[in-house]
Amino acid sequence: MAKKIIIIGSGAAGMTSASSARKFDPTSEITVITEDEDIAYSPCAIPWVLEGKNSWDRIVMHDAAYYSEKKKIEVLTRTKVESVDAEAKNVTAGGKKYAYDSLVIATGGKVFVPPIQGVGLKGVFTVRTIRDGKDIEACMRGTDKVVIAGAGVIGLEMAVALRNSGKEVTVIEMMDQVIPRIADADMAAPVQHHLEEMGVKIVLKAPVEAVLGEDNVTGVRAAGKDYPCGMVIFATGVRANLDIPKELGFDIGQLGAVAVSPTLQPYRRGRLVKDIFLAGDLIQCQSAAMPGPTMSQLGSSAVKEGDIAGRNAAGDCAVFGATASPWVSVIGDMQIAGTGLSQGLASWYGISAAEGKAEGFTRARYSPGGKSLIVKISADRSSHRIIGAQILAGEDATGRINWLTSAVLFGTTAEDFLSTAENAYCPPTSMVRDVVLAAAEDLVRKLSG
Amino acid sequence: MAKKIIIIGSGAAGMTSASSARKFDPTSEITVITEDEDIAYSPCAIPWVLEGKNSWDRIVMHDAAYYSEKKKIEVLTRTKVESVDAEAKNVTAGGKKYAYDSLVIATGGKVFVPPIQGVGLKGVFTVRTIRDGKDIEACMRGTDKVVIAGAGVIGLEMAVALRNSGKEVTVIEMMDQVIPRIADADMAAPVQHHLEEMGVKIVLKAPVEAVLGEDNVTGVRAAGKDYPCGMVIFATGVRANLDIPKELGFDIGQLGAVAVSPTLQPYRRGRLVKDIFLAGDLIQCQSAAMPGPTMSQLGSSAVKEGDIAGRNAAGDCAVFGATASPWVSVIGDMQIAGTGLSQGLASWYGISAAEGKAEGFTRARYSPGGKSLIVKISADRSSHRIIGAQILAGEDATGRINWLTSAVLFGTTAEDFLSTAENAYCPPTSMVRDVVLAAAEDLVRKLSG
Repeated sequence: MAKKIIIIGSGAAGMTSASSARKFDPTSEITVITEDEDIAYSPCAIPWVLEGKNSWDRIVMHDAAYYSEKKKIEVLTRTKVESVDAEAKNVTAGGKKYAYDSLVIATGGKVFVPPIQGVGLKGVFTVRTIRDGKDIEACMRGTDKVVIAGAGVIGLEMAVALRNSGKEVTVIEMMDQVIPRIADADMAAPVQHHLEEMGVKIVLKAPVEAVLGEDNVTGVRAAGKDYPCGMVIFATGVRANLDIPKELGFDIGQLGAVAVSPTLQPYRRGRLVKDIFLAGDLIQCQSAAMPGPTMSQLGSSAVKEGDIAGRNAAGDCAVFGATASPWVSVIGDMQIAGTGLSQGLASWYGISAAEGKAEGFTRARYSPGGKSLIVKISADRSSHRIIGAQILAGEDATGRINWLTSAVLFGTTAEDFLSTAENAYCPPTSMVRDVVLAAAEDLVRKLSG
Repeated sequence: MAKKIIIIGSGAAGMTSASSARKFDPTSEITVITEDEDIAYSPCAIPWVLEGKNSWDRIVMHDAAYYSEKKKIEVLTRTKVESVDAEAKNVTAGGKKYAYDSLVIATGGKVFVPPIQGVGLKGVFTVRTIRDGKDIEACMRGTDKVVIAGAGVIGLEMAVALRNSGKEVTVIEMMDQVIPRIADADMAAPVQHHLEEMGVKIVLKAPVEAVLGEDNVTGVRAAGKDYPCGMVIFATGVRANLDIPKELGFDIGQLGAVAVSPTLQPYRRGRLVKDIFLAGDLIQCQSAAMPGPTMSQLGSSAVKEGDIAGRNAAGDCAVFGATASPWVSVIGDMQIAGTGLSQGLASWYGISAAEGKAEGFTRARYSPGGKSLIVKISADRSSHRIIGAQILAGEDATGRINWLTSAVLFGTTAEDFLSTAENAYCPPTSMVRDVVLAAAEDLVRKLSG
């Protein structure tokens, strides 16, 4: 009899789970249940649609009909899961019961909005779904001044999008730098400067205390000061969506997300739960940079986890190893990227890190069109293993951060990386000795000094 | 007493040797002896100067005065080394004797020109030095039709430069594809097509038999057919310059280059030679892709080898490990890059290779400005280790080939690479799952099938 696989959630993790389950088992019955109206779209692209560089239609890859016809995957949109019975192995959704042999829970995360006055007013948004994006787009038409709460990458990408759409944009951040959790202060400062040059106001060390207004937003109060605006966007971090995991009694890890095995199965009071797999923003997994858990709330991580959860739901026994969580963001004309641990995270985990840093160009010094390139690599002072890297560049940060991600994933020491590393060279695409190698050389010097 | 270090040759290997020796030993006396008139320039940039995208001045990084003043390195230009006495430890050059404590030989390679009729005529060139470049530039003014012998990356970059300068360009290649030694036929074919679209004529399977003319070149005969032209550029490969090594009786390896130890010292009848170090196009070194020798005649390799030779000449004991020899070339709007073994080289070495290949884009599918991206990865069928990769892309090939070079250098298996690899993602800089991962997945499938 065909295996029944149910997947809850239609984001990158859920839809990848469905496709990978289908590839692994061509005969299974696969059903995706989602509250969302659109599926298989790229939420990361929302800022670019808002500034007119893309369209809602284009960023939706496929609809439910495509999955049904091409992949024999049934997708129930706008359908809320009311309960899951892990003993009887069924899901109740939209008033109906659906039996399963294996279940993937990929319900993602929820934007954290601080519990302060006024967050329910008209004109207050988060950025998570296309619905959010379209609501923001509608509100933009009647609004000149926008406050963005949170200077993480989503907040900053939104700031650029709204600024490029002609708005007066103020970003208000509680911490003392932009991109505070994953970027180091010295790498974040040029990004802040670039935003300010574009006309974005950045207010640091200012916790948002209240959203002001009666019916519609009229301003934001932060650190005792009022910032008038007609729209507020909260980009204040994503928390794991624990609704279903808590209902099912799954163990929650130290980071507030579901603890999972390498096969992406949850635990209940320390015991592995059979036939249920989790993927995406709601889990915590093993860090490649240090012996402890991490959360990897990235689209690319969701795809990798979804692939493994889907295959395992279909009968495979694939494992999800440790993660370096590489990320990249485009802020105006700048690219900022990172992998492994930032300074802040390393110190939070009690790791003493050495840092190497180098500046140069993305092309040969004399080659026209070359952009500035700053590379920073950090290593654990005791093991000398590379635990993180960050790149700030006018172009081509992504391939370089993936290269350094390899070093974090394989636990390469700084010395091995430096003595082994080679780079391809052509004047219009790199310096003869890539800046990554110069940063590694500086790191080795720091470790030996 | 200050250590006397002499370096013969002022290319990337020689000048890096000098700088690294200086860094390691601030007190040594360092002298560079070179026949060249310009030093510390980028020969790789010559095509871009010829088509007007750069200038001779800009591609020369530093002159002899700079080295003397800033680094206490004396550079004797236009000075031919007449002999080396390895017993007495001195070099005779320009009629004078220079004593040394350690010697670096970095005399590079010589362009191979086939021994055929007419190669001495006016209008026949090779591309190695700025002098060559300036001679070609002068000849271009009176010439409409150019034949380039050899469709390797230098030949093709010259073809684009001359075509963009309005010339009628014909590239004549002996083998049955462009970039025959290091690129596979399926990766080279789109490059050929792109060149043909630019108006470059490509003639394959045609050995050049004679250069025609009395005093000046009037044409080239290849495979029995005449191609009228006023200029011929031979880009038919580089051979190790063995003049000094042969004089000194150094052992020559299987590939026709000087065999060196990991410390970059030569051998004489199997015995390591003390106090002499070699770097650059004249040596053969250990391949990272298979247990055997390889030649890595690349600017980036010369810099890495030069660094080690220079440090060792100054008293360090650094080792040059195995090389994957990553390369990249920009041909018009296309970037082609490779690392490790091509199909042809793998089969030459008797390795049975499996190949994985994937096509996609450099940015998210819906993201404007994204370019085509084709990635191919190959592995040894018996060990499953990744032995090579090639990339064809409209942008951002370099970082990705460096990433795959890591896998070759560390002997990563295809399975480990795939299960471990992560990529950073942002719609304007990559697909959510990079094409590199899709190619690795295809490779693992091929290895298991």
